[in-house]
Amino acid sequence: MVQFANFLNINDLSDSELHELLTSAYAFRDGKQVTLKRPVYTANLFFENSTRTHSSFQMAEQRLGVKLIDINPSTSSVTKGESLGDTLKTLQAIGVDFVVIRHRLNNWYGPMVEDKNIELGLVNAGDGSGQHPSQSLLDLMTIHDQFKTFTGLNIGIIGDIAHSRVARSNAEILNRLGANVFFSGPKEWFNEDFAAFGTYVEIDELLPKLDVVMLLRVQTERLQEDDLNAFTAVEYHQQYGLNKARYDVLKDNAIIMHPAPVNRDVEISSELVEAPKSKIFTQMHNGVFARMAILNAVLTSKGLVEE
Amino acid sequence: MVQFANFLNINDLSDSELHELLTSAYAFRDGKQVTLKRPVYTANLFFENSTRTHSSFQMAEQRLGVKLIDINPSTSSVTKGESLGDTLKTLQAIGVDFVVIRHRLNNWYGPMVEDKNIELGLVNAGDGSGQHPSQSLLDLMTIHDQFKTFTGLNIGIIGDIAHSRVARSNAEILNRLGANVFFSGPKEWFNEDFAAFGTYVEIDELLPKLDVVMLLRVQTERLQEDDLNAFTAVEYHQQYGLNKARYDVLKDNAIIMHPAPVNRDVEISSELVEAPKSKIFTQMHNGVFARMAILNAVLTSKGLVEE
Amino acid sequence: MVQFANFLNINDLSDSELHELLTSAYAFRDGKQVTLKRPVYTANLFFENSTRTHSSFQMAEQRLGVKLIDINPSTSSVTKGESLGDTLKTLQAIGVDFVVIRHRLNNWYGPMVEDKNIELGLVNAGDGSGQHPSQSLLDLMTIHDQFKTFTGLNIGIIGDIAHSRVARSNAEILNRLGANVFFSGPKEWFNEDFAAFGTYVEIDELLPKLDVVMLLRVQTERLQEDDLNAFTAVEYHQQYGLNKARYDVLKDNAIIMHPAPVNRDVEISSELVEAPKSKIFTQMHNGVFARMAILNAVLTSKGLVEE
Repeated sequence: MVQFANFLNINDLSDSELHELLTSAYAFRDGKQVTLKRPVYTANLFFENSTRTHSSFQMAEQRLGVKLIDINPSTSSVTKGESLGDTLKTLQAIGVDFVVIRHRLNNWYGPMVEDKNIELGLVNAGDGSGQHPSQSLLDLMTIHDQFKTFTGLNIGIIGDIAHSRVARSNAEILNRLGANVFFSGPKEWFNEDFAAFGTYVEIDELLPKLDVVMLLRVQTERLQEDDLNAFTAVEYHQQYGLNKARYDVLKDNAIIMHPAPVNRDVEISSELVEAPKSKIFTQMHNGVFARMAILNAVLTSKGLVEE
Repeated sequence: MVQFANFLNINDLSDSELHELLTSAYAFRDGKQVTLKRPVYTANLFFENSTRTHSSFQMAEQRLGVKLIDINPSTSSVTKGESLGDTLKTLQAIGVDFVVIRHRLNNWYGPMVEDKNIELGLVNAGDGSGQHPSQSLLDLMTIHDQFKTFTGLNIGIIGDIAHSRVARSNAEILNRLGANVFFSGPKEWFNEDFAAFGTYVEIDELLPKLDVVMLLRVQTERLQEDDLNAFTAVEYHQQYGLNKARYDVLKDNAIIMHPAPVNRDVEISSELVEAPKSKIFTQMHNGVFARMAILNAVLTSKGLVEE
Repeated sequence: MVQFANFLNINDLSDSELHELLTSAYAFRDGKQVTLKRPVYTANLFFENSTRTHSSFQMAEQRLGVKLIDINPSTSSVTKGESLGDTLKTLQAIGVDFVVIRHRLNNWYGPMVEDKNIELGLVNAGDGSGQHPSQSLLDLMTIHDQFKTFTGLNIGIIGDIAHSRVARSNAEILNRLGANVFFSGPKEWFNEDFAAFGTYVEIDELLPKLDVVMLLRVQTERLQEDDLNAFTAVEYHQQYGLNKARYDVLKDNAIIMHPAPVNRDVEISSELVEAPKSKIFTQMHNGVFARMAILNAVLTSKGLVEE
């Protein structure tokens, strides 16, 4: 059974670990249940809000029988100048077995992993513009469901590439798994760091050859300081959004993905969010089982799961 | 067993459904327990705060064995421009079976019921100045406990009629059940819409003939834009509040109700909140069992309750 | 078995009750489990934030099998002018068995205990600058672990004495149990009220003779109105903080305690927080079992625990 002490970056996994993790996620989706050896406790520390990821982790935890210590970093004294390391040692001292953390800081986990006194499991639910590994796993599940392979698939990641942890996590792992990765959207939102994983192509040239259209959320709050990037929602939708005309040029078995929440009529026309090719709500459904597989692997490494 | 897919407006129920629901609530109060066929999940989305209703629903859910996904709309990304429909589809996708919603928007549920892709159960915990159907059910329980009937009872609803969802829900259902409904309080807070259900009578003329004195909370936050309605708390209490002199003219077996939280010494003298005729805390006690009956009916319609 | 209806001030306990409570806490730490006679419900009302105490009580409740009704006083309508008494009667009406309360008001519980209509159990998780009795119990556990007695121990409480409920609770109980209590830190932060329990001694004179170095958190938010008390963090650390030079004069078996969260490099050098003599994270670990013992005593008095 696949196991790891922490889950921080999906690209740290070997190919075989990754395939085992996918297999485990599908098994949970098919109804697999596990028994814990003793009561297991977690805390979900969302320093940045995220209803979707947070509620999906809660559901995964409940389905695994994990008990929750409820802490809201935005209203708690955690943020009264206490370091993240001291917060984690406190939770460890009261008996928390693992934590799920979303934090605005890239690589928040680096110093935590180096601290010998921190022994609880660390699960990354998104770090700044770094990684979003549980999102990547659910995206892999959704792609594999449709195509039964990653090799040779044409996958287009479209939107705010430079600031997106979804783009970063996915571009790297999909490239490694043998997919052909492309980027599109506003050229000035592309970042040459990503050239290692794929090439930039104009949107209307790219769409007809894609198997997977992976849209990113336009995160207006990230762009407010940069006048050059100022599109109106209408302009963005016209130039880069997935509208009916662009939908009609997609391959018959192509799928549309989006990490959500969707800005309807910005990244995608409202009428297409639940169109036949859209897997947006399927992704959310898969997310619960992806997270069950991840947490199960962390709990297994701690010897907490009955074999 | 009474069942319905959603619980939105108590006036949508037939008389026989209503009596079955009351019977079910009393059965839960007498210790009835149910067994769920599988783990059942809910989320309580309180877009407007309400400690009382929120904690009462939590207690009802816990007593039924329903598991909670904890989301706070006031701090979550739910409100970051995502539509209510997309939030509900997200929760459905992760496996939530029903939601309990309080929202400032009248009839928030109308468009949700029309959306074919929304299949989870919808429970209305108060919509704007529209309905508050779980409060109505607990009020019916409390009245029926005392009088064993609704027919012919004289019921006075007193206070901010126009803005109160409690007034609206209760006036309609009590009128239909055969009670004689009266309204009192500031004349300018009465609304002719309500004339279909009962008549306005001056407070000191009304009180001696009432079986049920149903006080409403003075919601100062709703009135701030309207200078004409500006009473001080002392003036309100003097002109319309239930004080000792008014208490003493009530019938021997009359009861006093209030949806709470009470503004002590505004709607009612502090010394009377726990007086013998007051059923205010009894209402809260009944509320848990009213909500168990409501949720049980939703779960039954989904086939989730062992017969 | 030790039992009490409420837990408000550790100094209200007799010596034998206190020793029984310590014994019970150690038993829980050794793995003791209890069975509740029926589902038991609580609410944790933290009117002042405290991640540490709040999460420690949550863990204690979960380990005892107590179910939680989740209410956040800072965002809920509890604070919309409703009195604490009415909030407690509401929770009682919906079936809550006991509440854990932190409140900025000294002696918040006095009027609650006097109200005959309030029957649920009251547990004080800190009142203003009054008492913090669960912290005192975990501190006693940590001291007794090391020395197996309190009699004759030299215990120094160092820092913001006047405003600290930890100082107040601990000075009184440790004095009563036969320890020699001393105070140090800024002389202007000492309060003659405390002279009944021990004497003020200059920091560098005090440290070499201590068995227990009990540091208090510098609560800058409490001092902002008083210019005379304005130290910079660097000045405080230099004059009163525990640095390496001061650590080196401590007795071999002395221990360092702190209620946390620690201001690293203010009360104590960062490098010493996890030094061999530091029991800071041990205190947090003990806190869960101290709180299990406290809650178990309240539940026992209500007849809710299987013998």
